[in-house]
Formats: sequence, C-alpha cells, structure tokens
Amino acid sequence: MKTDYIKVKTKGNCDIINITFELERIVEKERLEEGIIFLSVIGSTAALTTMEYEPGLEKDLKQAFDELLPYRKSYAHNFTWSDDNGHSHLRSSLLKTSFFVSVSRGQLDLGTWQQVVLIDFDTRARDRKIVAKIID
Amino acid sequence: MKTDYIKVKTKGNCDIINITFELERIVEKERLEEGIIFLSVIGSTAALTTMEYEPGLEKDLKQAFDELLPYRKSYAHNFTWSDDNGHSHLRSSLLKTSFFVSVSRGQLDLGTWQQVVLIDFDTRARDRKIVAKIID
Amino acid sequence: MKTDYIKVKTKGNCDIINITFELERIVEKERLEEGIIFLSVIGSTAALTTMEYEPGLEKDLKQAFDELLPYRKSYAHNFTWSDDNGHSHLRSSLLKTSFFVSVSRGQLDLGTWQQVVLIDFDTRARDRKIVAKIID
Repeated sequence: MKTDYIKVKTKGNCDIINITFELERIVEKERLEEGIIFLSVIGSTAALTTMEYEPGLEKDLKQAFDELLPYRKSYAHNFTWSDDNGHSHLRSSLLKTSFFVSVSRGQLDLGTWQQVVLIDFDTRARDRKIVAKIID
Repeated sequence: MKTDYIKVKTKGNCDIINITFELERIVEKERLEEGIIFLSVIGSTAALTTMEYEPGLEKDLKQAFDELLPYRKSYAHNFTWSDDNGHSHLRSSLLKTSFFVSVSRGQLDLGTWQQVVLIDFDTRARDRKIVAKIID
Repeated sequence: MKTDYIKVKTKGNCDIINITFELERIVEKERLEEGIIFLSVIGSTAALTTMEYEPGLEKDLKQAFDELLPYRKSYAHNFTWSDDNGHSHLRSSLLKTSFFVSVSRGQLDLGTWQQVVLIDFDTRARDRKIVAKIID
C-alpha cells in the first residue's frame, strides 16, 4: 500500500475545490492500471464527494447546505466553545470525510461530468491535508 | 484485484434499484470467502446506499429527498444549461456515488433487512454502470 | 485480510457512541503501521461517520437529524409494519452504514478533534455489531 498526500489551501465557508487533477497525477505517478484510491480529509469541518464541477452547481450546492444545515448562533457547540462553526461540523458529519475512487485501465472510474471535490465548511481559510492510500 | 460490472436500467426520478442479488452473484462467481466489494456508480446524478428494501420505505425515501432537496426550476444549474436536473445532482453529491460492502464466510456483511440499492435521481430513464472492484 | 468485530450496546434514539478507542485497540492488536480499516455496521437503522465528539455537538447533531428527517407517525413504513422507526431507516440510508479510516505510521488518519462514531437511530436500545476488515 502506497500513501500520497494532497494539500489544498481553501477559503473556508463552503469553498469547493476540484481535486480530480491531483488524483489523475497520482494515477500517473504510481502508474496505476487497476486499483483504488482511498481519500480521507483530516479534520471535522470538511468533507469529500463528487459533483459536476461547474459554477451553477457550485452555487446550488452552497445554497443547499445553507438551507439543510444553516449557520446559527444558537448551536450548543458555538455556545460551549465561543465558536461560530457549529454548522460546519454538522455538514462534515453528514457528508463525511472519506471517499474512494477506483481506477480501471489507467483511468479514474468517474463520469465525464463527474469530479471529486473537497468542500471546506469551516468559517475561515484553512490548509487541508487529504491522505490518499493506494491499493493495486 | 478483480473488476466486475453491474449494469442496471432505471426509470430515473428517484428510482430505487435493489442490487443485492447482483452482489451475491459476484460473491459466488469469484468464490469470495473473505473480502470487500467496492462499488462506484458512474455519473453525477445517482448514488449508492443501503435500506430495508420494502415498498413503504421506498415511498418514504423518495418523499424525504423531495423535501430535503426539492425539484426547483430556479437552480443555477438548470438556468445555465437549460436543464431540469439540478436537484438530481445535489442529491447525488449528498448521498455519494460510492459504497463498499464486506464479505465474511462467503456472505455479504448486511443485516437481514438491509439491501444495497442504487438510486437514480436523474429526471429520465438511464442505463447505469456500477464498477465493482473486489479485494480478497 | 483480517476481520475484527466491535460490539456496542446503544440506547437507540440517536445515541452517539465514540468508537475511536476500539479502532486504536485494533491498530495496536494487529500491529498496523500502514493500512485501512473498513467498517460496516450491520442493520438498516444505524450509521457511521466522524465528528468532534463533545456534548455540544452531540446535542446539535441529534437536533439536526430531528429537523432533517423528523419522527412522523405517517411514514408508509410505520403504517405498513405497525412500526415507529421509519425516520430511523431514512437517517441510516442518508448517513450510510459504512466508513473507512486509514492508518499511517501506526496512527489513525484523524484530526485531533475528530472521532469515529456509531449513531443508532433506532427507537430502542440495541446490541450493534460493526465488522472491521483490515487491509495492510
């Protein structure tokens, strides 16, 4: 099993970062023909998923999270820790911090309009580390 | 690592397809005793999860998604692309396109009332391809 | 591939159980330096994710699920089976029953404020079994 790291600078506040190019770089670097890349973003206010990465859906997805799990002063987490990112934690727990993508014939098993993204729900800019474990 | 494919015809519109039999077929075909099956549905308007596959919950789950992430003409994705499936994309990103199920003593590690399902959130019938990577 | 089991007694009703210590015990027992632990909770009314495990967020997460997928007498599942846990099923399908956590240099790839948790959405106390498959 090999380990790679993807490091990303985010703006926080539901910043959505397309990391598909980094995954393609890993496929190339490790000369992966058949395998799986297991991704974990470290921390409890970010998450990983896929989407069609285009500006319209970026806007729609941010608004969807604003409606599903809105910012609120009144979260117990905010009150206890004099913090403002209770909603960021809830979103990360719901969307989850891990994701895997498989590789067949040297290509990521994704659709043409499907990209792997990191979403940073925290309320400030963050340096994020994603651990990539590779099995082939 | 072996690769299998599960191909499914869906009706779209939150069609929920039980793929547990296909997984059992893979277990049998590959003579899997101990292992894991890693599933990825290709595309950005479908997702994989588990549920008790019975008509009541099928109805409840469709209604839950209609309430959580409703159809709306006004999604930026619909406006930009003259499309009608913005909600389908959001649901897929939330529920996610990958899932794994492990195998112990030749049996899928699922409960008696737990099935693996593909949900097609798109707004039309689709031919779906699920990539199954098998590690034993 | 090795298999371990984590057994947990829950109170149901969105009981959130921190299983990070059990995972650290597996890392130690299996002398895992580099690897991945694949977790599946058996059943269709529980789920696995990560969170900052502190009482404020525990309260916030329970309330979030009460709002996202509320208890309702009227779920078709409840009506069909004279049951009261339709919402428990929906929550499990949304949050999903599987999760993986990787291990690097003998440590779980988690943040300082990030714990792996089992959430039992069922409406009664349950004995839960989590299957842990270990690849190194």
